[in-house]
Amino acid sequence: MAGIQRKVAIGIDLGGTAVKIGILNRAYDLLAWTSIPTRAARPCAEVVADIGQAAKALLRDNGYTCADCIGVGIGSPGTVDSQSGIVLYSNNIRWEQVPLAAMLNKYIPVPVFASNDANCAALGEVLKGAAAGCKNAVFLTLGTGVGGGIVIDGKLFEGGHAGGVEPGHIRIGSEGRRCTCGRMDCLEAYASATALIRDAKEMAAQHPASLLWELCGRQLEQMDAKMPFDAAQAGDACGKKLTARYIGYLADGITDLVNIFRPDIVVLGGGVCAQGETLTEPINRYLRENCFGGPVAHIPRVVVAKNGNHAGMIGAAGLLDGHGVWDA
Amino acid sequence: MAGIQRKVAIGIDLGGTAVKIGILNRAYDLLAWTSIPTRAARPCAEVVADIGQAAKALLRDNGYTCADCIGVGIGSPGTVDSQSGIVLYSNNIRWEQVPLAAMLNKYIPVPVFASNDANCAALGEVLKGAAAGCKNAVFLTLGTGVGGGIVIDGKLFEGGHAGGVEPGHIRIGSEGRRCTCGRMDCLEAYASATALIRDAKEMAAQHPASLLWELCGRQLEQMDAKMPFDAAQAGDACGKKLTARYIGYLADGITDLVNIFRPDIVVLGGGVCAQGETLTEPINRYLRENCFGGPVAHIPRVVVAKNGNHAGMIGAAGLLDGHGVWDA
Repeated sequence: MAGIQRKVAIGIDLGGTAVKIGILNRAYDLLAWTSIPTRAARPCAEVVADIGQAAKALLRDNGYTCADCIGVGIGSPGTVDSQSGIVLYSNNIRWEQVPLAAMLNKYIPVPVFASNDANCAALGEVLKGAAAGCKNAVFLTLGTGVGGGIVIDGKLFEGGHAGGVEPGHIRIGSEGRRCTCGRMDCLEAYASATALIRDAKEMAAQHPASLLWELCGRQLEQMDAKMPFDAAQAGDACGKKLTARYIGYLADGITDLVNIFRPDIVVLGGGVCAQGETLTEPINRYLRENCFGGPVAHIPRVVVAKNGNHAGMIGAAGLLDGHGVWDA
Repeated sequence: MAGIQRKVAIGIDLGGTAVKIGILNRAYDLLAWTSIPTRAARPCAEVVADIGQAAKALLRDNGYTCADCIGVGIGSPGTVDSQSGIVLYSNNIRWEQVPLAAMLNKYIPVPVFASNDANCAALGEVLKGAAAGCKNAVFLTLGTGVGGGIVIDGKLFEGGHAGGVEPGHIRIGSEGRRCTCGRMDCLEAYASATALIRDAKEMAAQHPASLLWELCGRQLEQMDAKMPFDAAQAGDACGKKLTARYIGYLADGITDLVNIFRPDIVVLGGGVCAQGETLTEPINRYLRENCFGGPVAHIPRVVVAKNGNHAGMIGAAGLLDGHGVWDA
């Protein structure tokens, strides 16, 4: 069983609540995975120690040694300097200047690469997912915030400097919504699941006859991002207005990104993408009508992500792509 | 005098009114140049024939032969497929599907490369200009429209498909201004010289006591993009309001582009950039306060272009960079 066929990579998705750790082969098939609680309030050294030990245990439990592992990729929330593997700042896990790659390398003595989690998810969809076979892709994840990743010529584009490639932080709205980044009216302030829930709560409070009230059990704090779509589906006027506005802002942000990157494909991930074509078809229509160059230019398809909850692990392992470690 | 030192390139700036043709050495010094009228209403074959003959005459008049010329770069307005050298569509010169590079190659039998004119200007500022020595740059030209070019890792980024990289066509305003591209509220509809002149005319018409009225000789059609800045400088309230609004929209668009590309530098070209630090200093302040990541992330400087009216020729010749023709 020894030999090159046994070579595997570790892909790690570091989240605010849980850390998912996976073993992947060169085709980025997820062979085995585990999950441990992050408990991010602890000192970061303890978090990293748990990750390192869980990764080694996962290898061992599945019949692999560290020698079978060609490298580790890890995606972290926040601003990550992928050159140095340092998490510069993460609001989500409250880290600042944490040399994640170097710390992890002490537990698993193989090349370790780190990047932003949305960047990893973008790469995962290109290597094995909705954008498979595409060289240029724009990825947006619609969750607590609006994360994003850009793949150019098959490679992750991480900006000229750390802190780059935050397509959720382009100005899109005009309603005077404060974004988490401090600026007014970013795409994230309108197209995140958080923004949709905020707007649904406001709408439900103003329209107690709306179906939204029933769907959240008359408890605003129970509102989630699916309820406005469910209400719209059932013909509720408030639900229709909310989802149309949400999709409109998202479509406008995607049009900006198409005009800048003109990718082969646009992939949407995160919880909201469970809406599938209810979400993507109006956006595809909007792009055809609004992208620069109209029929003369290439209009990419907008599709939903395929890797789901595994996107982070697949994409993190994908960070090893292009570094020659698979061939070493 | 024969030998490698004599090798030169031709850089051509194809404009709606005039075509500028220059001879440049490998350091992108402009050794000689000429200008001919475009007369774009003629069949495109005639326009290209004139360009080809003028380029050959320029070489000859300066003591060069076609054998001394290692290649030709040409920048065209509109949507250019740089892979094929075809101008797909140019509203400015009314061209559609014109195989510019191939047509020009019949007159000068050397490698010919074509790209969008703003892309060329961006490249020119990196090769020899305000962004010299930078690997990553965002360039915006503030003229009739808002053109743009992006340099990543020293290379022009032209998007995944033709029609890409139009940073003037990201949504920025909320006043309901129709952009030339058909969409509402693009950066171009607020930050072009055309938009500033439009707003100044409206403001002057509404405020006949404003200095704007005097500066344009009480003839609105005489208004230009310098007058609002002159009025502001003289303390005129309307001038101050106009220029602050203009700079605010531009700063917001640049913040979007920094959040996406995180470049080393942002360079502003076009007529409005004659305002120098009056334009750039408020934008630099805005970026420090509004870019994602704040003090943790890299905030690029915003500066004005240095190549002026030669930017198109220098950048067009720069298209030869990275194609190995200088070393052939």
